[in-house]
Amino acid sequence: MADKETLTVDMQPVGRRIQIKPGQTILDASRSAGVGVISLCGGEGWCNSCLVRIASGQVNPPTQSEIDSIEEAQIEKGYRLACQTIPLSDVRVDIPPESLSTPQRLQVEGKDFDIAISPAVKPIDLELAPPDLKDLRADADRVIAGLEEVGYPNTHVDLPVLEVLSDLLRKYKWSVRIVLHDDEVIAVLPPGSEIFGISVDIGTTKIAVYLVNLSTGQIVEKAGVMNPQIAYGEDIISRISYTRDTEDGRAKLQEVIVNTLNDKLEELCQLADIQRDQIVDSVIVGNTAMHHLFAGLPVGQLVFAPYVPALNRSIDFRGGELGLNMAPGAYIHMLPNIAGYVGADHAAVILSTELWKTKETVLAIDIGTNTEISLVFQGNISSCSCASGPAFEGAHITHGMRAAPGAIERVQIKDDEIKLFTIDDQPPVGICGSGILDVVAEMKTSDLMDEKGSIKAGSPFTRQNAKGLGELLLVPAKESGNQKDITVSRKDVNEIQLAKAAIRAGLEILLVEAGISAQEVDRVLVAGAFGTYISVPNAIEIGMFPDIPLMRFQQVGNAAGMGAVQALISTKHRHLISEVIKDVDYIELTTYADFQKLYMNAMYLR
Amino acid sequence: MADKETLTVDMQPVGRRIQIKPGQTILDASRSAGVGVISLCGGEGWCNSCLVRIASGQVNPPTQSEIDSIEEAQIEKGYRLACQTIPLSDVRVDIPPESLSTPQRLQVEGKDFDIAISPAVKPIDLELAPPDLKDLRADADRVIAGLEEVGYPNTHVDLPVLEVLSDLLRKYKWSVRIVLHDDEVIAVLPPGSEIFGISVDIGTTKIAVYLVNLSTGQIVEKAGVMNPQIAYGEDIISRISYTRDTEDGRAKLQEVIVNTLNDKLEELCQLADIQRDQIVDSVIVGNTAMHHLFAGLPVGQLVFAPYVPALNRSIDFRGGELGLNMAPGAYIHMLPNIAGYVGADHAAVILSTELWKTKETVLAIDIGTNTEISLVFQGNISSCSCASGPAFEGAHITHGMRAAPGAIERVQIKDDEIKLFTIDDQPPVGICGSGILDVVAEMKTSDLMDEKGSIKAGSPFTRQNAKGLGELLLVPAKESGNQKDITVSRKDVNEIQLAKAAIRAGLEILLVEAGISAQEVDRVLVAGAFGTYISVPNAIEIGMFPDIPLMRFQQVGNAAGMGAVQALISTKHRHLISEVIKDVDYIELTTYADFQKLYMNAMYLR
Repeated sequence: MADKETLTVDMQPVGRRIQIKPGQTILDASRSAGVGVISLCGGEGWCNSCLVRIASGQVNPPTQSEIDSIEEAQIEKGYRLACQTIPLSDVRVDIPPESLSTPQRLQVEGKDFDIAISPAVKPIDLELAPPDLKDLRADADRVIAGLEEVGYPNTHVDLPVLEVLSDLLRKYKWSVRIVLHDDEVIAVLPPGSEIFGISVDIGTTKIAVYLVNLSTGQIVEKAGVMNPQIAYGEDIISRISYTRDTEDGRAKLQEVIVNTLNDKLEELCQLADIQRDQIVDSVIVGNTAMHHLFAGLPVGQLVFAPYVPALNRSIDFRGGELGLNMAPGAYIHMLPNIAGYVGADHAAVILSTELWKTKETVLAIDIGTNTEISLVFQGNISSCSCASGPAFEGAHITHGMRAAPGAIERVQIKDDEIKLFTIDDQPPVGICGSGILDVVAEMKTSDLMDEKGSIKAGSPFTRQNAKGLGELLLVPAKESGNQKDITVSRKDVNEIQLAKAAIRAGLEILLVEAGISAQEVDRVLVAGAFGTYISVPNAIEIGMFPDIPLMRFQQVGNAAGMGAVQALISTKHRHLISEVIKDVDYIELTTYADFQKLYMNAMYLR
Repeated sequence: MADKETLTVDMQPVGRRIQIKPGQTILDASRSAGVGVISLCGGEGWCNSCLVRIASGQVNPPTQSEIDSIEEAQIEKGYRLACQTIPLSDVRVDIPPESLSTPQRLQVEGKDFDIAISPAVKPIDLELAPPDLKDLRADADRVIAGLEEVGYPNTHVDLPVLEVLSDLLRKYKWSVRIVLHDDEVIAVLPPGSEIFGISVDIGTTKIAVYLVNLSTGQIVEKAGVMNPQIAYGEDIISRISYTRDTEDGRAKLQEVIVNTLNDKLEELCQLADIQRDQIVDSVIVGNTAMHHLFAGLPVGQLVFAPYVPALNRSIDFRGGELGLNMAPGAYIHMLPNIAGYVGADHAAVILSTELWKTKETVLAIDIGTNTEISLVFQGNISSCSCASGPAFEGAHITHGMRAAPGAIERVQIKDDEIKLFTIDDQPPVGICGSGILDVVAEMKTSDLMDEKGSIKAGSPFTRQNAKGLGELLLVPAKESGNQKDITVSRKDVNEIQLAKAAIRAGLEILLVEAGISAQEVDRVLVAGAFGTYISVPNAIEIGMFPDIPLMRFQQVGNAAGMGAVQALISTKHRHLISEVIKDVDYIELTTYADFQKLYMNAMYLR
C-alpha cells in the first residue's frame, strides 16, 4: 500500500482528514491540516510533546528516539511521536488534548454523552378497534382508553392534536404510534415511527440547531444559521430598542426567528429523511434577551438597572404557541436563565461542561457579543457577564467580517513575512475575530505595537495612514485583487482591547470574589464558536486570558448547544440544571466597585 | 297614589313590567303583558285558577269571591285572585307556576342557583418588593415567591401572562391582584379588582352569552347574538360540507364565531363597566358540531355513520389559543359531549335541570334545529337526538321568519276572527316558529285541516292557491300594507309535521326503551329559546308532545346556558356532569329499527 501516490491521514477527535505524500510524517500532516500539534523541539524527536496514538493503519516501526522517550506499555497501545511516524497506508490518528497547541475544537460536540437516555416523550404503539354502532366512543376517548389498556392511565388529548387526530386515525387505519409528553398525547404517527427532537442555541449572531434521535440520543444532523434579527439590530441593546420604538417590534423579532427555525427544521427533516411530525420535543437556549425575544417576553426592563429578566426559571410550552412547526402537540423546554445577562445558554454550558459536579477549580468562558463567565471553586459556582461587544464577530473592525469563506482566521508575523490562513483556503477578503486577535498578538510579539496599542510605523508591514496613525498592511490590494488594501488600524486594535479587557476584568473579579489567583485554576474551558477557533496562546499573549499553563485550557466548542442536547435527551438533566442554577452566585459587574479600575488596567497589552 | 295616570305592575318571576290604567285588574295587566295567567271562569272570580301573590304595593281589599275561595292563611300571605285585584299603587306580583297557562318562561334563568360558589379561579392580592441590586429575582420568580409566602406554593406563570407581567407589575407599582387557575397565574389586575367569567351557549342559530360575577355567582349581564356561521350554511350539515369543500373552511367558521364572541364580550364589558382582563374564566357549550367548530376540531366524521365526535370528554384550554380575548391566561372549559348529535349543550341541560339527581321520571326536551331529548327513569338517563330541522326557526316556511320584531308569535283562530300577536307588537311581517305551531294547532281544532295536514278550502280564512292546494290567509296584504299576503300553505304545515314527528318519535322511543308510557312521566321540561315561547297546549294538540296533564310541563328557558353558568361558578358541577354523562345511555335513532314506523305515525295530526 506504500506505493499509493497519496495517503489519507484521518485525525480524531478533531475530525480533519488530509492527503499526504508517502514519506511525510504525522506532524507534517497535522501542519498541512492546520491541526496544531505541539512540537517544542521542532520535530527532532526528543521533546515528547507531539505524542499521538495510531488507531488504525500501518506506519514505520518506532524510532530509537521514540523507544527512548515513550514507555513500552504506551508503545504497545499504539502511542507514537507525530514527528517520527511515517504512515505506510491510510491511517487514523487519535490526538490527545494534551498534544494539541490549539486545544481540541468542538470537544464537547465530539464526545458521546455518558448519560442515560430518558427523554420527556414516550412512543407507544396502539392497535385500536374502529368505531361501529356498538362502540360509539369519540376518537380521542378511544385513544385514551387504548392507552389505559397498555398501562398509561389518565392521559389526555389537547386541541393541537385533536385538530388532526380524527383524520390520522382513519389514515393509519386505527393502528398508530402515539407519542406522550407526560400525560398528554402530542403526536400521532404511523406505527413504529422513529422519534426525534431538536436542540437550539439562539445566539445574538448565530443560531445552532441539532436534530437528535430520541431513541439513541445521537445527533443525526446539525446546522448553523445567522440570527435573522440582525436586520433589526446588531446587538442586544439595539434589538431591545427596536422593540420599544416599533409597534409590534417584539412580535416581529419573534416572527423572524421562528420563521428561520422553521426553514431550518424543514432542511434538517429533508437531510434526515423524516417527517416534521416525527420531531416531538425540543430544548431551546439563548442568552436572556434571545430567550425572551424568542418566547415573546418583554425585554424593555433588561436595559435598566437592576436588569431583571421577566423569567428566570425554566418553562415548557407548545411549539405551536409560537408557530414552530414540529409534531402538533410537541413542546419546547427552555432552560432557566441565571440573570439579565447570564442566560439559559450559559446554564447549558454549566450543564454540558459538568461544572455542577466538578471538584476542581474551573473557569468556563463562553465568548460572544456578551461573554458569560463562570467560576467553580470548592463546588460553588459564581457567574458574571461582560459586554465584550461584537468585535470578535468581525463587527466594528475596518476590514472585519464574520467567519465565512475568505475570512483571514489565522495570522503569523515572522521576520520578513506575514503568513495568512483563510477559511476554506479562499482568497482573503477580510478578517474575522480569531484573525484580528492573532494580528494584535503577533504585532505585540514582533514589537510593532506599544502596550497602549499604538502601531509603530516603519516596519515592512506597518505604515502611517492618512490621519497619521499607524496601521498594519495585511493584504495589499495589488496582491489580492481586492479594490482596497486589507489593513488593521489603531482603532481596530482598540476594539480588540476593549473586548479583551471586558473579558479579563470579569474573569479577575470572579477570582477576586472567590479569593484565589488565576494560578489556582485547574482548567479553563473556552466555549462558543469564536472561542473554539482562536489561538489560546495568542489570547494569553494579549492578556485576554491569564498567563497560566496552556495545558489547562480546553476549547469545548458549542457547549451551550451540547447542554441543550443533554437536556433534550435527559429530563434528569433538565431538573438538575434547574436546581444547580438556584445556587449560582451572580455578580453584577456594572455596579461592581473595582470594575472600572480592573477594566482600564486590562486594556494594556503587556 | 291612586290618582297616578298609570301604575306599574311588575310580574315575577317571569320578569315582565307593564303600565296599566287605574281600575284595571292584575288579570288585565297579565293579558296586556302577554303573560298567560290561567282564567278558567273568564274573570268571574270563582274558578280560583288565577291565584297570585301581591309581593309589594297597595291593592283593593279582598272581594267576597276571594274570601270565599282562598284560605285565610293564604290571604294573610298576600294571595289574591288576579281577576279580582286592582292595584292602587305600583305593585309587584308573584305568579306561581301553577297559575301560568303558558308555563313560566326562563324559569331556570330566573332562579338563583342553590349551589356553593367554587369557581376554578382564585384572586390573591400581593404586595411585592420591587427589584433592586440586592434582590435581582426575575419578575415571574418574584410573583411565584410572593404567592408561596401567602400559602400558594408551586405556582407557575406561562407565556400569555409572561408577555404582560413585567409591564403590569411596574404599572401597578408591585401591588397586584393575581388570579390563579389551579396553580397557574392567569391574570394580573389592580389590587381588589372584581373577577368575572363568561358562559356561552353556541347554538346552530343563536349564541347566548352570560357575564357572571365569580364572587357572587350572579349573572350581571346577558346577551344573545345570531351565530355568524349561518352565512356559511344554515344547518349543521351544510356547515360541515363547507369545511370539506372549502380550503381553510374550518378555520373560517372558527374565526367568525370567535370574532362574534369577542365583539359581544366587548359590549358586555362596557355594559358592566369592567375591563376585559377581569374576565378570568369561561365555560362554553354547544351541540357537538358547534362545540367542534368552535374548538377547531374536525367535523367531517360527524356526517358518516356511526357519527362519532372527535372528542366527548370535557376539555380545558386557554382562550388565547383560539384568539378569544379575556384575561391573558384565562381558560375555556368545554363541557363534555354525549354523542355526535347530543352535545355539551345537552350535558348542560342535564346539569341545570338536575336530571342527574331527580328520583322522578322526567323528560327534558331541548328544541332546536336538532332536538335533544333525555329521559330519566329510576335514576338512569337515556338520550337521543331528533333531526327536527329549522322549521321552528322560521326556515323553510313560506312566510317564515326568525323570532324578531313583527314576527307573528301567537295565533288564535276563533269562529269569525284570526287573532295575531306579534313580537314587540309591531305590524306583522312574517311568522315565526311558535306562530306557525299555533296556526297548525288552531286549524286542527277549527277543523280547517284534515289529519294528514291538508288545508280545507271554503272557510273565511282558507282558500286554494294557484296550484290548487289549500292555504290559510293570515294577514291580507291590503290590511298589513305588506307587498304580499301572509299565508300558511300545505307545504308549511308539512314542514311542521316533519319537525314535530321527529321530536315525538324520539320521545316515544326513549319511553319504549325504558318500558314506560307517557302517562308515567312526572315532568316534561321544555328547554331552548323556541321551547320557551311555544304554547304547550298547542304542541300537545298537534301531537308534538304526548297528551299528559299540562301541569306536568315546565318551560325552562335556556337550560343549556344555565348549565354553563353553573359549571362556571362551581368546579364541583363540572366534575359532576362529566361523571354523569359517562352513564348516559345514548340511543342512535337513525339505525333504530322502529324509528321509521314511529316517525311516519307521528306525522298525523289527530
